[in-house]
Amino acid sequence: MSDQLIIFDTTLRDGEQSPGASMTKDEKLRIARQLERLKVDVIEAGFAASSNGDFDAVKAIADAIKDSTVCSLARANDRDIARAADALAGANRARIHTFIATSPLHMEKKLRMTPEQVLEQAKQAVRYARSRVGDVEFSPEDGYRSDVDFLCRVIEAVIAEGASTINVPDTVGYAIPELYGNFIKTLRERIPNSDKAIWSVHCHNDLGMAVANSLAGVKIGGARQIECTINGLGERAGNCSLEEVVMAVKTRRDYFGLEVAIDTTQIMPASRMVSQTTGFVVQPNKAVVGANAFAHASGIHQDGVLKARDTYEIMRAEDVGWSANKIVLGKLSGRNAFKQRLQDLGIEMESESEINAAFARFKELADRKSEIFDEDILALASDESVTAEKEQYGLVSMSQRSETGERPHAVVVFTVDGKEMRGESDGNGPVDASLKAIESHVKSGAEMVLYSVNAISGSTESQGEVTVRLQHGGRVVNGVGADPDIVVASAKAYLSALNKLHSKADRVAAQG
Amino acid sequence: MSDQLIIFDTTLRDGEQSPGASMTKDEKLRIARQLERLKVDVIEAGFAASSNGDFDAVKAIADAIKDSTVCSLARANDRDIARAADALAGANRARIHTFIATSPLHMEKKLRMTPEQVLEQAKQAVRYARSRVGDVEFSPEDGYRSDVDFLCRVIEAVIAEGASTINVPDTVGYAIPELYGNFIKTLRERIPNSDKAIWSVHCHNDLGMAVANSLAGVKIGGARQIECTINGLGERAGNCSLEEVVMAVKTRRDYFGLEVAIDTTQIMPASRMVSQTTGFVVQPNKAVVGANAFAHASGIHQDGVLKARDTYEIMRAEDVGWSANKIVLGKLSGRNAFKQRLQDLGIEMESESEINAAFARFKELADRKSEIFDEDILALASDESVTAEKEQYGLVSMSQRSETGERPHAVVVFTVDGKEMRGESDGNGPVDASLKAIESHVKSGAEMVLYSVNAISGSTESQGEVTVRLQHGGRVVNGVGADPDIVVASAKAYLSALNKLHSKADRVAAQG
Repeated sequence: MSDQLIIFDTTLRDGEQSPGASMTKDEKLRIARQLERLKVDVIEAGFAASSNGDFDAVKAIADAIKDSTVCSLARANDRDIARAADALAGANRARIHTFIATSPLHMEKKLRMTPEQVLEQAKQAVRYARSRVGDVEFSPEDGYRSDVDFLCRVIEAVIAEGASTINVPDTVGYAIPELYGNFIKTLRERIPNSDKAIWSVHCHNDLGMAVANSLAGVKIGGARQIECTINGLGERAGNCSLEEVVMAVKTRRDYFGLEVAIDTTQIMPASRMVSQTTGFVVQPNKAVVGANAFAHASGIHQDGVLKARDTYEIMRAEDVGWSANKIVLGKLSGRNAFKQRLQDLGIEMESESEINAAFARFKELADRKSEIFDEDILALASDESVTAEKEQYGLVSMSQRSETGERPHAVVVFTVDGKEMRGESDGNGPVDASLKAIESHVKSGAEMVLYSVNAISGSTESQGEVTVRLQHGGRVVNGVGADPDIVVASAKAYLSALNKLHSKADRVAAQG
Repeated sequence: MSDQLIIFDTTLRDGEQSPGASMTKDEKLRIARQLERLKVDVIEAGFAASSNGDFDAVKAIADAIKDSTVCSLARANDRDIARAADALAGANRARIHTFIATSPLHMEKKLRMTPEQVLEQAKQAVRYARSRVGDVEFSPEDGYRSDVDFLCRVIEAVIAEGASTINVPDTVGYAIPELYGNFIKTLRERIPNSDKAIWSVHCHNDLGMAVANSLAGVKIGGARQIECTINGLGERAGNCSLEEVVMAVKTRRDYFGLEVAIDTTQIMPASRMVSQTTGFVVQPNKAVVGANAFAHASGIHQDGVLKARDTYEIMRAEDVGWSANKIVLGKLSGRNAFKQRLQDLGIEMESESEINAAFARFKELADRKSEIFDEDILALASDESVTAEKEQYGLVSMSQRSETGERPHAVVVFTVDGKEMRGESDGNGPVDASLKAIESHVKSGAEMVLYSVNAISGSTESQGEVTVRLQHGGRVVNGVGADPDIVVASAKAYLSALNKLHSKADRVAAQG
């Protein structure tokens, strides 16, 4: 068996399905480029048939990415598979990942199909997918809760039809390492043509064991592909976390004896980019990428650890991309230094004019803030990316005041399709007043379901980055805004969310 | 072997050692009461010998808690053990947990002792501890990286001296489930008197496997105690998370066949209390207690899930204390309803005057905000608890304004030992200006290492809760402030942090 472990990242597909984590095409493309720098083997870029927006995103990623295989999810029907194949047409290496549920519960309640119908549809889907691309992955959804005999029949049949990767999802996060590992082992032993495919694991973290389950699937079960996401993003408790599973394989090479292609120094930039794009914070006590994960990276001195770091740390912060010196640029830095730093951070701007706009913002920020950190640049770039979307709304200027004993008050001047509007309102606080001032004109009717402020470099001198999540008519969007003034950042975030809400999109949900 | 699994919570000891998570005595007492309501078997309340403050906290908890065993950590020396025993004197059931490192690396680099010296000291410590209390736990620190032959000798000797619980820590989070489970199994098989003690697991999450490792220690190794923390709080990537490990044992009773005493409906109140007290946010994709952990609890509608919840959810949100209807009180609610709600939320106020003060704040809040959520009440109570400490600094009033093109400006009036001061400053934003206005008088010289805003009920109409973490002279403190106006909440948090910074405390660090 090969000692190479394939890392299949599904941040842009399963991760993005998490309520509130939806991303625009430009955001997905930026993350895909970072995943390529991270050297993931396969990027699941989306679910092309779910919406025109998703089709466009998969296509843009397939056209741009050279080193990683680009994959699209597709239900087990001809239309979905055709859409996936069309979106992937420009890829260097394309994969179609088709799935159908095989557990009694899902077949009966969700699909309303008999097992024989499911078996037939799985075969047809793989056959058609193979007629479109050479690399086809098949997943029996809710596989871990499926009847083993039936599952063996389905998998044997789809391998015979040409599926080269077989993925066994623990869709609901119900597995235990020992049981899941042995489940995969049993399937591989019982299915006569099992050696014709690479086996893959896909675990959810509902009981906190996604990483251990995935690794048991590899060690006990003999799987050689792990499906995972940056920061463990994903529905409910999320998916297996890429950074944890990769660092476990690297740190315990003595036990696993496997190679991964990942450039681990790109882990932190990827983590920050995903967190800033989605507004999903990473908790301080998160393994590998949390602010406290490495004692000496948290900016706090601890005698014991400093004296003998290896007594308490099994990994080095530098190896996963925590940089020791994070002050990078200042007021006097030039455009070239700025551009270089963008590249180092893995931010690719689409055009020179985009770089110029970002540089202008950088200079404006540097006038107000003496030390510019990597985080500031990432925030600035993500703010830039938001405004790079076709904007209906834009901030012109604002003022606000509050005083003990009076209602806070705000005035916001903003553009709507190029025309200036002036909104005014009071509110529970200056942020609330500012957003109400905007809403008083826009009348979006959207419900705010999340307001979050991400500390960027630790102190209030830094830029504040605000995420506003709005829900309207069944859609959920995130807006992100950054500014040293948290009230201004909030207004920017609200306008950015409104811009996204007003761009049309409708999509089909998939699980996996 | 017993089918009862002992849940040993170390949020107040190992969790509190996380940089930035230190808590006051009152905060620890409040959390201990919540842990008692959660029905944890053992509460590790602190490390009595590490500081006078920790001694007082352990003593207060030992005196107040009736149903759970109260435990103090102690290094393996007479002074530490005597301090632990003294602090625990008032407990219904007291346990001393003594530890010494047994790995070659730790013995050589940290202790500078030979193995024989370590063995002798471990025996003496347990002997003395047993002379003071009937319930003694022993931990070989960094046990998982220790030489097995030597570890067997140490453990056999301490059991002979009367240690009734043997805890095997994976101090650095290096273990793999299969290996860790078999490590415990080997120890239990090789040590002749192993059946005289209950075996315990203590795992860290550096590779994302603390829960799976703990459960392998139970299933494969035969351990019957798990050491864990609320929200997985703890140094670096944290400890095994109580809520995950408990829900895994409950959800997979078919596999584990074990009973736990935990009242799972108290999990969410405990999680919120720990998060609000420490300022350590819980990420949305955190298992069990994250905002997205249950799709229908996130406030976002998802057709598929609503149609057939059991197709995707293996636990019920209600079972872990997510309440469906979170609007609880309004402007017209009376003092009794408020008091009842405090009790339901597990908040015990020390005195009637404290309840009155909290109720006054509640009425003030209800004047400004029509719907009061559970989160608002928790924030209000935690704000109350902060101000209940002996205050050096207090907020009187403040005003601030910002306008595009001008530097934001703030004026803060606050008391210092009862005397009113007026500070004024500009800053990068209104929050920055407000904190600088305070600092301009106080001149604490503290460095701000974290500024975070916790979204409380999703929208900006809610109260904002702000955590400010200050570092000065080797100490790190958190201040928490809540207010519908985020700028006011920030000023409150800053003053609260200053109050904590100025209360004296010096302590010895322990690891485990």
